[in-house]
Amino acid sequence: MYNIVYRDGGVCASEGFYADGVRAGLKPDNAHDMAFIYSENECEIASVFTTNKMYAAPIKHFKAKGDFKTNFVLINAKNANAMTGDAGIKDIDEILETLSIKYKEIKNPVMSSTGVIGVRLPKQKIIDGTTFFDLTNRNNKDAAKAIMTTDTFSKEIAYRVELKDGKSFNIGAMAKGAGMINPAMATMLCFITTDADVSKNVMQEILDEVTKTTFNAASVDGDTSTNDTVMLMSNAKSKVFNRDAFREALFRVMQFLALEIVRDGEGARKLVTYNITGAKNDKEAEIAAKALSNSLLVKTALFGEDPNWGRLASTVGASGVECSEETLKISFDNLCVYDRGELHFDTQMEEKASRVMQSQKFTISCDLGIADGNFKAYGCDLGYEYVKINADYRT
Amino acid sequence: MYNIVYRDGGVCASEGFYADGVRAGLKPDNAHDMAFIYSENECEIASVFTTNKMYAAPIKHFKAKGDFKTNFVLINAKNANAMTGDAGIKDIDEILETLSIKYKEIKNPVMSSTGVIGVRLPKQKIIDGTTFFDLTNRNNKDAAKAIMTTDTFSKEIAYRVELKDGKSFNIGAMAKGAGMINPAMATMLCFITTDADVSKNVMQEILDEVTKTTFNAASVDGDTSTNDTVMLMSNAKSKVFNRDAFREALFRVMQFLALEIVRDGEGARKLVTYNITGAKNDKEAEIAAKALSNSLLVKTALFGEDPNWGRLASTVGASGVECSEETLKISFDNLCVYDRGELHFDTQMEEKASRVMQSQKFTISCDLGIADGNFKAYGCDLGYEYVKINADYRT
Repeated sequence: MYNIVYRDGGVCASEGFYADGVRAGLKPDNAHDMAFIYSENECEIASVFTTNKMYAAPIKHFKAKGDFKTNFVLINAKNANAMTGDAGIKDIDEILETLSIKYKEIKNPVMSSTGVIGVRLPKQKIIDGTTFFDLTNRNNKDAAKAIMTTDTFSKEIAYRVELKDGKSFNIGAMAKGAGMINPAMATMLCFITTDADVSKNVMQEILDEVTKTTFNAASVDGDTSTNDTVMLMSNAKSKVFNRDAFREALFRVMQFLALEIVRDGEGARKLVTYNITGAKNDKEAEIAAKALSNSLLVKTALFGEDPNWGRLASTVGASGVECSEETLKISFDNLCVYDRGELHFDTQMEEKASRVMQSQKFTISCDLGIADGNFKAYGCDLGYEYVKINADYRT
Repeated sequence: MYNIVYRDGGVCASEGFYADGVRAGLKPDNAHDMAFIYSENECEIASVFTTNKMYAAPIKHFKAKGDFKTNFVLINAKNANAMTGDAGIKDIDEILETLSIKYKEIKNPVMSSTGVIGVRLPKQKIIDGTTFFDLTNRNNKDAAKAIMTTDTFSKEIAYRVELKDGKSFNIGAMAKGAGMINPAMATMLCFITTDADVSKNVMQEILDEVTKTTFNAASVDGDTSTNDTVMLMSNAKSKVFNRDAFREALFRVMQFLALEIVRDGEGARKLVTYNITGAKNDKEAEIAAKALSNSLLVKTALFGEDPNWGRLASTVGASGVECSEETLKISFDNLCVYDRGELHFDTQMEEKASRVMQSQKFTISCDLGIADGNFKAYGCDLGYEYVKINADYRT
């Protein structure tokens, strides 16, 4: 029916999209700190924002626009423009107005921010930074770098979707994460472009669906930020669309970026999949999986490469879902370490389990043995680096 | 009406109670690792256990006894006897049977355990250890030491309650905590003795009530264990009782021990009170307070002594309770750092706030400005030591 082919180009992989990262002096050491995404024609836009009640000024600004099309997103790092009240919104208005005056091609621009909470935007620096923008640049790599905060590597991906009639469309994306990543999304920004000819409603429906099993299944530390944003922009340039292919490609894009974000969790060295099966229902499986991926005790055991299955059992038990020691099975990859009380966890098994945990990537499976609910969550370990980064973050 | 006077003696402060700690070889370096509490006459017993679905064998064993009186509790450290199935319960039966044969005074003994999950009790070592018991000893200090796991100091307290007619009763207690301490209690053991003449039902009612604002308001890492236990034993020796005085004294005992446990949280250097006021109702205040005391980002900011009020606001916002940046106020002790968006957090204020955070004990207050719900939770910071302890715990 269709092929989904990996390609280069990040957010510029979709036809008619341009992007770049510039240095506006927001980050020390002259690093890229501001980015834009621009489309030749106006785009339909679908979005998912944080559930945090203290959501930031750029999200308030976006939501206040109601139903609109845009061809421009401005993104800055280092300052979240959160807890800044009306002044924070006025700052955005002023920045975007200056931008629209300077670049006549820009229609209805929106803004997205990440960084420290509770400090006004360095407005003049940002306005000055926009003078470096060249809307004909396809510099997706610098754009992806510019939006990083404590990320240690930039995150982008793109696919070409080839339909059977020889026609094709593209989908490309960039994201930033690291720290505060949680089942309900946190200080996570993701910008997805597509030239598929998809309506706003359909795009929003698919985005909501895919978010549940990708970004909302990923956890670094269980906190939810003021600025989490996923934006999906379509300029319809390819003039084609196929719903199944689009959903599949969007899932691959978001799944890849969600795992990249977890892998790059502050100080993280391991990417762990928590595969819950046999739960009373899918919702209970999700609760148990997220309890594991968020547990400090589990995270530190991962860091210590300690196959402490007792902590896993205890964490599942503490999550409140239906379970019992008589029906539970626990495995590290394919190695079963607890089987409804019938296995003896001896030194040999412990050594084997330790070896599994020494890898950078493995799966912890818990079969609750109750019914057939299932869910997969993604998490990382927590070590000294996490503490170091977060004890010193503001200073 | 009554006086509550601090006194020595821990669990032996109550008339007719004896206790000791012995060395059974469960801990390395020949430390105390088994304790008993014995009363001359049989006691009414009230209890609160973990809400973890994987609750340990000693709790199953206790619950299966139904309504009973006892005069003896045996406690061991290093092994939780959790996830050990029927074998774990049989181990307890065997140990307690041997004990009852050896000491004819012991009636209906119960057991309590803390330590590693998923390993059978070292039954013979424990049975051998009981041969060192001398039921005439009042060695509360060694008992309190014996129940420690990663605790760095032992925890005990006692009060004499003087009624106006010259009569008095006593209440004494010991506890162990450190790590896994959570709003729903975790690997926390607490044994309280009293010679007050109180009925089982009244004792249970007051214990449930006091637990909510003491142990269940304290958090080290947000996890709930398989073995959490609070036991309150009364032998009625004093022949007097006063409900208000008893409740007040029990509150002081449990409040003191809860704070001692938080203060001794694994690697913790700071004890922080989260005082939420102005919430929609008390339940919402409790949710917000516990969200703060459990947040990794807040805990690491405490460790870094960084007055990052933005993280506090974000965490309250993420907790799902009714709140907004327009009505929120945040203070460090008496220093207001955010006042409904109307304060400017400048360098001077930051310095003052940092100074507050440098103390070992302070209060973070959030007035949500919605209605008059309030709750106080207690938490600690999280630093390298926590990671170290938990990465290496089993090994």
